Amino acid sequence: HARGTERVHKNVWLEFARLAADYKAVNLGQGFPDFSPPEFVQDAFCKAVSGGHQMHQYTRPFGHPPLVHILAKFFGRIVGREIDPLEDVLVTVGAYQALFCAFQALIEEGDEVIIVEPFFDCYQPMVKKAGGKPVYVPLRPVSGDGSAVPSSGDWVLSPEELASKFTPRTKAVVINTPNNPLGKVYKTEELQVIADLCIKHDVLCISDEVYEWLTYDGNKHVKIAGLPGMWERTVTIGSAGKTFSATGWKVGWAIGSEQIIQRLKAMHQMSVFDCATAAQEAVARGFEREYELFGTPESYFQQLPAMLHQKREKLASCLGGAGLQPVMPEGGYFMIADTSSVTVDFSDFMSTDDEPHDFRFVKWLIKEKGLATIPVSAFYSPEHRKDFDKYIRFCFIKEDSTLDAADDILRTFS
Amino acid sequence: HARGTERVHKNVWLEFARLAADYKAVNLGQGFPDFSPPEFVQDAFCKAVSGGHQMHQYTRPFGHPPLVHILAKFFGRIVGREIDPLEDVLVTVGAYQALFCAFQALIEEGDEVIIVEPFFDCYQPMVKKAGGKPVYVPLRPVSGDGSAVPSSGDWVLSPEELASKFTPRTKAVVINTPNNPLGKVYKTEELQVIADLCIKHDVLCISDEVYEWLTYDGNKHVKIAGLPGMWERTVTIGSAGKTFSATGWKVGWAIGSEQIIQRLKAMHQMSVFDCATAAQEAVARGFEREYELFGTPESYFQQLPAMLHQKREKLASCLGGAGLQPVMPEGGYFMIADTSSVTVDFSDFMSTDDEPHDFRFVKWLIKEKGLATIPVSAFYSPEHRKDFDKYIRFCFIKEDSTLDAADDILRTFS
Ligand SMILES: CSCCC(=O)C(=O)O
Ligand SMILES: CSCCC(=O)C(=O)O
Repeated sequence: HARGTERVHKNVWLEFARLAADYKAVNLGQGFPDFSPPEFVQDAFCKAVSGGHQMHQYTRPFGHPPLVHILAKFFGRIVGREIDPLEDVLVTVGAYQALFCAFQALIEEGDEVIIVEPFFDCYQPMVKKAGGKPVYVPLRPVSGDGSAVPSSGDWVLSPEELASKFTPRTKAVVINTPNNPLGKVYKTEELQVIADLCIKHDVLCISDEVYEWLTYDGNKHVKIAGLPGMWERTVTIGSAGKTFSATGWKVGWAIGSEQIIQRLKAMHQMSVFDCATAAQEAVARGFEREYELFGTPESYFQQLPAMLHQKREKLASCLGGAGLQPVMPEGGYFMIADTSSVTVDFSDFMSTDDEPHDFRFVKWLIKEKGLATIPVSAFYSPEHRKDFDKYIRFCFIKEDSTLDAADDILRTFS
Repeated sequence: HARGTERVHKNVWLEFARLAADYKAVNLGQGFPDFSPPEFVQDAFCKAVSGGHQMHQYTRPFGHPPLVHILAKFFGRIVGREIDPLEDVLVTVGAYQALFCAFQALIEEGDEVIIVEPFFDCYQPMVKKAGGKPVYVPLRPVSGDGSAVPSSGDWVLSPEELASKFTPRTKAVVINTPNNPLGKVYKTEELQVIADLCIKHDVLCISDEVYEWLTYDGNKHVKIAGLPGMWERTVTIGSAGKTFSATGWKVGWAIGSEQIIQRLKAMHQMSVFDCATAAQEAVARGFEREYELFGTPESYFQQLPAMLHQKREKLASCLGGAGLQPVMPEGGYFMIADTSSVTVDFSDFMSTDDEPHDFRFVKWLIKEKGLATIPVSAFYSPEHRKDFDKYIRFCFIKEDSTLDAADDILRTFS
């Protein structure tokens, strides 16, 4: 593969996608399914693409009308509020561009932005690009009695520590629920603590909810935008790629008050102007179907988490067997695991001493074992990186055959 | 149509798309075909979308491998130089995002950017957003003997005027060939004047060539990147939407030296990370076909200009008949026309006095006559707007039935 000849920017996704490809590793690294989206959205995409000329030309720049309508309806039903499809919703080039527009539109030179760790890595450069200063506060594992399997639910914010991060310069708090890489699904009480602080300090909340439909064990995803006083100050970001297992479609959105979304729209207009038509049409059809089937067994929003739950169990038991103690995720499609009990002799191995342990471990795992994962310290600020570099992240939205191949590799550990 | 209830940003595309929709006008406004892309790319898109799972998931962030390869090969053949598909090419969310990345990556606070007028309107806000200062230099019509039909070829840059705009702060020159809205196709000698100044002052060139395949009357599109000494300092921007009549696919690119493209890649990574997979696959197939058929009558790059040439003739004769003297475009799919000889009594008509004449004229044309166009002064800086506000722009990449409907309206003028 020619990738090996390409100069790569310092970025965890590029670096490890390339390593995985170069070593033809079993890939539990970057977060994307190695299977297709469900037939109903695939069919809708095919139909759009072979439909009339409108499907091949520009649509409304801030979102294809059927898509913003069903997004508004769906979101509105969840938070119990009327959402204006034309004013309160912006369709973007994946959640990634929604995040970019949010930071660019809402953060000004010198603003402080509180980021809960671990965090999806792009928040940091995006805040800086907007002239803001990231301020970090980590979720910390509260130790149970040692008998139970660790769960992402054990990782909590200290309300005092969080409160101590607010200053007169604080402009926004960024949360991610279900969290990537941890899988934590914030409970209402936890969100209420954050909401109270946002309201008290008149601060915005950027809530990245791309895994909103993927929760397990009865954990329920809660939208912070639905808490009293939060609609006016929250921008909620979502992803069709994560929702419909179609990461290559690059359809995402931001939903919030007209005042907030107006500002994101200006940035969207500046950076891409409009989004691809046919994929938006297909995503609209997908959501329309899900709206009708909501809560029924035919719903993909029931079926996908059920399927992922099985994959989670499967991966957790492989990891446990290999001595890589997993932290069971309450949501999302990633699982972090503790590498401490696996002793690796890196001395023979091309990897620099000053790298965090997890980076060295992942490189060893790819190069020596042919299994690609992602180092968890990539989701931390430099100040907290060393505290969490015993963990590596596994993606489990993969065919069972892929998970089996990973298992075969993991079995060689014990 | 619900659009009427949407607050609209100050932007000529949003404003006139909305007016056109509200008044159900025959739409020769915004530049997009009212027909489908050619079957071979449509089929390729369908095939991609019903293909394997890879087509639905992330591809290489800086461009789907088959697409960057064929783009490099095609561009390389034209400029007679080896292009590195992985280092010299970046795929973007339409040419629009390529422009955004170019300005963000290359322009710094206080840099001056020379923009040739008339210019695609987004250059100005993009330069300003990057902290740059736009410096304008207009193409000016040299009057012929009055007998010939005016042509976009009569609109020229004064080399002295252009030279006078360069200062030690000049960072880049932006050109657009074939030009939107004028249709001017720069000749080699004209490009050489620009190139000489860029080289003399060590200045970059951002060359927007989205209509590169659409030229008429034997005019040949020339790439300024192919002139001696220019490859190192030019970023060339292209569009699959304009090339394959698929504006809704949102696939564009930037091509240039590794040093330049590296900087655009960083901005791309920041703003969207990657582009949709299936559309890139289809565009790759389209270019591969065109590469093979290049110069043959089956080539779409022959067929589309031939079709557009007929449409150009048709529209020009309708406009001439209505007393709206057109300026014959040498390329692109727009035609500007002089409204001076059409007297309209605006006194009865909701339109503010301080608006440029062409804005008032276009609003009248939409509201009273049901024909949508675009005011040409939207493509000028405030300093030159009033000099060119007798012109309005017509888009002619439209079904003959649409052009006939426009003709029916134009016939009521005389
Ligand atoms: C920019 S990479 C996106 C993939 C992802 O969300 C992840 O792996 O965390
Ligand atoms: C952002 S609108 C794009 C359409 C276009 O290129 C034009 O009409 O000039």
